Amino acid sequence: MRTVAPESVEQWGIFELQLDGPSKGNPFLEVSVGAEFQYGHRTVSVDGFYDGDGVYRVRFMPDVQGQWHYTTRSNASQLSGIEGAFEATTPGQNNHGCVRVRDTFHFAYDDGTPYWQVGTTCYVWTHQGDVLEEQTLETLRKAPFNKMRMCMFPKHYAYNHNEPPRYPFEQGQLKDWELISSYSGRSPTPEKGQSKQWEWDFSRFNPDYFRHFEKRVQNLMDLGIEADIILFHPYDRWGFATMPPDVDDRYLRYVVARLAAYRNVWWSMANEWDLMPAKSVADWDRFLRITQERDPSQHLRSIHNCHVLFDQAKPPITHVSLQISNFNPNLEQIRDYRLSYRKPIVVDECCYEGDIQERWGNISAQDMVRRFWEGTIHGGYVGHSETYWHPEEIIWWSKGGVMHGGSPERLAFFRKILEDTPEPGLTPIEGVTGGYFRYAGVVGQYYLTYTGLHQPRSIGFDLPAGTTYCAEIIDTWAMTVTSVEGVFEGQFTISLPGQPYIAVRLLRVHKED
Amino acid sequence: MRTVAPESVEQWGIFELQLDGPSKGNPFLEVSVGAEFQYGHRTVSVDGFYDGDGVYRVRFMPDVQGQWHYTTRSNASQLSGIEGAFEATTPGQNNHGCVRVRDTFHFAYDDGTPYWQVGTTCYVWTHQGDVLEEQTLETLRKAPFNKMRMCMFPKHYAYNHNEPPRYPFEQGQLKDWELISSYSGRSPTPEKGQSKQWEWDFSRFNPDYFRHFEKRVQNLMDLGIEADIILFHPYDRWGFATMPPDVDDRYLRYVVARLAAYRNVWWSMANEWDLMPAKSVADWDRFLRITQERDPSQHLRSIHNCHVLFDQAKPPITHVSLQISNFNPNLEQIRDYRLSYRKPIVVDECCYEGDIQERWGNISAQDMVRRFWEGTIHGGYVGHSETYWHPEEIIWWSKGGVMHGGSPERLAFFRKILEDTPEPGLTPIEGVTGGYFRYAGVVGQYYLTYTGLHQPRSIGFDLPAGTTYCAEIIDTWAMTVTSVEGVFEGQFTISLPGQPYIAVRLLRVHKED
Repeated sequence: MRTVAPESVEQWGIFELQLDGPSKGNPFLEVSVGAEFQYGHRTVSVDGFYDGDGVYRVRFMPDVQGQWHYTTRSNASQLSGIEGAFEATTPGQNNHGCVRVRDTFHFAYDDGTPYWQVGTTCYVWTHQGDVLEEQTLETLRKAPFNKMRMCMFPKHYAYNHNEPPRYPFEQGQLKDWELISSYSGRSPTPEKGQSKQWEWDFSRFNPDYFRHFEKRVQNLMDLGIEADIILFHPYDRWGFATMPPDVDDRYLRYVVARLAAYRNVWWSMANEWDLMPAKSVADWDRFLRITQERDPSQHLRSIHNCHVLFDQAKPPITHVSLQISNFNPNLEQIRDYRLSYRKPIVVDECCYEGDIQERWGNISAQDMVRRFWEGTIHGGYVGHSETYWHPEEIIWWSKGGVMHGGSPERLAFFRKILEDTPEPGLTPIEGVTGGYFRYAGVVGQYYLTYTGLHQPRSIGFDLPAGTTYCAEIIDTWAMTVTSVEGVFEGQFTISLPGQPYIAVRLLRVHKED
Repeated sequence: MRTVAPESVEQWGIFELQLDGPSKGNPFLEVSVGAEFQYGHRTVSVDGFYDGDGVYRVRFMPDVQGQWHYTTRSNASQLSGIEGAFEATTPGQNNHGCVRVRDTFHFAYDDGTPYWQVGTTCYVWTHQGDVLEEQTLETLRKAPFNKMRMCMFPKHYAYNHNEPPRYPFEQGQLKDWELISSYSGRSPTPEKGQSKQWEWDFSRFNPDYFRHFEKRVQNLMDLGIEADIILFHPYDRWGFATMPPDVDDRYLRYVVARLAAYRNVWWSMANEWDLMPAKSVADWDRFLRITQERDPSQHLRSIHNCHVLFDQAKPPITHVSLQISNFNPNLEQIRDYRLSYRKPIVVDECCYEGDIQERWGNISAQDMVRRFWEGTIHGGYVGHSETYWHPEEIIWWSKGGVMHGGSPERLAFFRKILEDTPEPGLTPIEGVTGGYFRYAGVVGQYYLTYTGLHQPRSIGFDLPAGTTYCAEIIDTWAMTVTSVEGVFEGQFTISLPGQPYIAVRLLRVHKED
């Protein structure tokens, strides 16, 4: 009986206890394993998982420094009652813990560092083979993004017809579609002319599939990027969108057991939940509850829409992950969503920079950047992706690789400006000005406005007297910040260059007493 | 007793009968005059008006060619029972009659010529003195616009603080605001620091004011421009927005009697009716009814909103004159308005090209042009104006003068394309394509789509087989039309340059039998 465990791990690092156990029968179904982790008087119950070849693992993210004790539990006697201890040590330089909701509408890491969300999407970059995946990581290393939306399952969709290198379940026999449909009780959609498909042994996970996925989540962690993991999605030819409920639930528990100890994980129940008719609202409620109950680290939870918003008021949902898919999306509705749900509003999809035929994938770089600024002014956070046509269909939005667009450079500039926001972050503010422009800020301290497609030659402010501000004009496209001479108080007007895509920032002048 | 009348007038020209009559007392109140115009078995009753100095006029626009007879009626015996005849002759080259609604959603002149609305706005250009007014006409001569929105009353607003050269009523004494308020029973808004104002003799019109206005309407007619006359508006420091109901009604009847014979007149009850709290919905209904009942030529009638739409379903309203004033107006709502009201939809205001501080007056030339194309694709018609800051506040949008912007040139190009539309005009069409772009056209004959801010590198069509089309790519900003090689049928894809502001036009190829 072998037990492998480290003696120490960083706070918010991954403690992993490796145990040898039974490999006969079907351990995925028959063997439960877990541990109680104890710190002083506090006990945290953690699920483990079977990793194949008789190896079991229990992973845990300690959230305080100091001595932790553990005791395993299992229905297999050889895995049960194993005790041990480890030291949670000072976190490394780039380890700030998990991202949490802070001050209702914003995010911060566990150590208090604000998290200013600038997301991107490469839905199935982890299912493309190592060459492309390494290239994606190399691209991300130089990119401005601190969140990646990515799918656990492979994707079947326009520009996405390749098979993944691995599958999440053990393959069974090649069977007729109709047989599979009757097996699952729900009907997957076959491709035109496709009459046969693998029948999966849904009772046996393929550990290699998940090990590979975890490695990529770890790679993102090393780059300071949050992994917004999409647990279900409708773009499917394998039957993963239409598994029976007991398989869905076992899959969720398995994923949570494997991944909850990675501090950069977020749980996204679905991409476009409303395009998955085989799942009911009760199913989604159950998935949210399982994810909430089984995750000892309580990562962020969301559920992303296409046309129909899931009820975002439900308590397990920590933040609103929106698609605003109108032809001309009006990001001003972020203000309403803030008032309705009192949660952070993340517009994960509001069209992507690119030139493919699909309307959601062919906005200009200027427009992608504009949507970031507008969403921000309305008190939300926005997500990027890129959909330039590629002869081999290697498109950033789904497969990763390299980026070709003009927005990432400007989003790097945008992120620097965003990171200058005072805590807790931007709140939409009414009545700061004439001219009907929208403002956000921290009252009495910091104001930001943005002209978008408009090109006023000046902009008026009407702030309470008694506080003076310095003003900066930000060309969000040329990426320049120009200080305006003088200081400003009460009612005043700032001259602008009279061109689109200009932001104005006011910062309170601190008096020397 | 002098009677002056021409022996002939063009069909849709202005027949004017001039009569000498009583000048004592107050002829505006005390003398009614009019005539019955007879053509074969048809009789049209027409109101005349007092033009000052003992002169009365009855104007009439004959709508068919041939011999017309008339007999005057009046409560003054010397104006009553005068008979005569005139010949309505072939109309001149640029005389097509009045613009009417045709085929529910479109417009055409009386002679059947389609009218493709490309409007502009110079609210009070007729109240600026001859030098500027002549310059405005000179500008219009070279401009692409075939409709002018313009106010009957002078305007008090930002950038509009000058006094008009004439007033519509005789001036009485300079009085305190409070006296005027109690007189009118409704409260005009005084300027800051302004305590006195002219009290008007609302029972006496100033004929010179109206003669001047008519001259300008005639000038527009000569240029082929429709005059969309705004009868009431809220931007007022003189009390014209808050006159008593009997004055409102007399004013309306007087204006209709004077102007209804000008074939290029349209009646706009109000600009921003919802900003005039002194008027009730019943007042507006009455104004619509008066205008409908008193106008023998039945010119187009509308009522323009700011935030709140007047009930556009009411029968006297011939077409919807919209302001879409959201921050990012979604012109797609034109489609809903078409379905709701089944009338032509004219977006007279969706922000103006310019650089002033006010949000509605600082969009770029690109965006102004984009809004025309988008509104058109959704089956509507759009209006332009221009609001570049000017040191003397001579801004096209209100005072006319010259234009400084980049949109008029592109709107001239746009108008040419619009005029190529087959009759009856563009209808929004669903399901012509993948990619979610919006289309309009004439089914089986003509299709037009527009990418706006999007930049697809290709666009797919899915049309019924059996009809072939040629395709053109229109760069709406560079003003080029490029034919695509080949002919197209059924499902096909057209390559695009992958940049914004591109339209694609399909024209049916006529087979030679």
